[in-house]
Amino acid sequence: MKPLWIIKIGGNVIDNPNQLALFLHDFAKLEGAKILIHGGGKIATQIAAQLGIETQMVNGRRITDGEMLNVVTMVYGGLVNKNIVARLQASGINAIGMTGADANAIKAVKRPVKEVDFGFVGDIKDDSVNVEILTALIESGLVPVFSALTHNGHGQLLNTNADTIASALAVGLSKNYETRLIYCFEKDGVMRDINDASSVIQKINPQYFEELTEKGIIADGMIPKLQNAFLAIENGVKEVYIGNAEKLSAINQGQNFGTCLSTL
Amino acid sequence: MKPLWIIKIGGNVIDNPNQLALFLHDFAKLEGAKILIHGGGKIATQIAAQLGIETQMVNGRRITDGEMLNVVTMVYGGLVNKNIVARLQASGINAIGMTGADANAIKAVKRPVKEVDFGFVGDIKDDSVNVEILTALIESGLVPVFSALTHNGHGQLLNTNADTIASALAVGLSKNYETRLIYCFEKDGVMRDINDASSVIQKINPQYFEELTEKGIIADGMIPKLQNAFLAIENGVKEVYIGNAEKLSAINQGQNFGTCLSTL
Repeated sequence: MKPLWIIKIGGNVIDNPNQLALFLHDFAKLEGAKILIHGGGKIATQIAAQLGIETQMVNGRRITDGEMLNVVTMVYGGLVNKNIVARLQASGINAIGMTGADANAIKAVKRPVKEVDFGFVGDIKDDSVNVEILTALIESGLVPVFSALTHNGHGQLLNTNADTIASALAVGLSKNYETRLIYCFEKDGVMRDINDASSVIQKINPQYFEELTEKGIIADGMIPKLQNAFLAIENGVKEVYIGNAEKLSAINQGQNFGTCLSTL
Repeated sequence: MKPLWIIKIGGNVIDNPNQLALFLHDFAKLEGAKILIHGGGKIATQIAAQLGIETQMVNGRRITDGEMLNVVTMVYGGLVNKNIVARLQASGINAIGMTGADANAIKAVKRPVKEVDFGFVGDIKDDSVNVEILTALIESGLVPVFSALTHNGHGQLLNTNADTIASALAVGLSKNYETRLIYCFEKDGVMRDINDASSVIQKINPQYFEELTEKGIIADGMIPKLQNAFLAIENGVKEVYIGNAEKLSAINQGQNFGTCLSTL
């Protein structure tokens, strides 16, 4: 099977013009089939504030009522997405901006209301990725660029976590491709010592993950992040990388990038 | 060659939820390959005002400085486009929302500054439509939905007249399809008597157009509109229709729709 890179960048990259420019330069150079997934950053919160709409976050997740959904549809699906697409085009990458609604690429269901009503937020079920049409787009030489939006198939757009979209795409497309999922964040990888940048762990397999968790070296928010990564690997993804958006060029140069999770 | 419908709706449809719902219902039912192009309506002006950005129009065209470009990118490319896509998906149409930047579908050049500086406004040159990739998308069963944005290929998005985008797509794609271009507006077609709704002229060829213009029956803004339509026909478009967005179902029912322009 052909390799396919699926790369997710977070709000910290979007919010920093220099970092975004550097990342897009490196992403454009990455060889082979690829997909980019981007979050929204602080722009949605800023635009919402300018429109007099208050942003409410619970556990780092945005409460998305009807008005906020309009804001994220404008900012993620319009402003951020189309500017990334235009800039990749300038680098000779035939990018195509998408949400899960476009080409019915990713369906989700509105998150059930429990303790918190997240509003128009989507959860992606298994087999909700339109592998056939995405394969057709990729085989046409296109590079899909996804913003963090899906739809429910009944006309409703849904704000959807970009990490989850990236993982769902990587798992779904592993039917047709050897998929490698890269989560870019602000650190160089999973570190033995959070205060020592040189302590990045290069490779983690499930056994080693267990060991590192037991010893308390991997803790807090990193545990569910890695659990989700290993779940993606169990479901067909070849490798998951966690590393620094600024250092993506290491992959082009055949060097180590961040922390690589795999079964090996 | 296979037939392809290319349908443009204006701001008046976008601004009226009931009319938009009715139109999308009829558009979804239209058989065969198709493309939708939409303008932005008053929402961009409203959002701009809420953000404290003043809208300036010259000859009905929006002056698009950097801030206004961000607004139209959010509103046309995000809010309006993605909601139309999600609603068409709900009707079983595999819509994919696009700007000219996506898939490098339509390139334009920034309008040269003469008496008026329109800012980031694009003019489409001949052969600027990516016929190959659009054909691949259509043959994959997708229905492109274009907002009124293009790019210059160097990373710059450009606000671009939706009528012009529709015409450029129809001319370009006439290489691979028998294209029919439909301009939807608020009237039932070209009328002999502007005060008599029943006076719609069913068919106009170039000779008849000349005759109607000489007699003053076609006047003012309708003259350049029809001139552009005949130019599209000279350049490969099979027929151009001008009619009421509310009456698109006439085509499905094999009835006359608005005014048909052709060489016959």
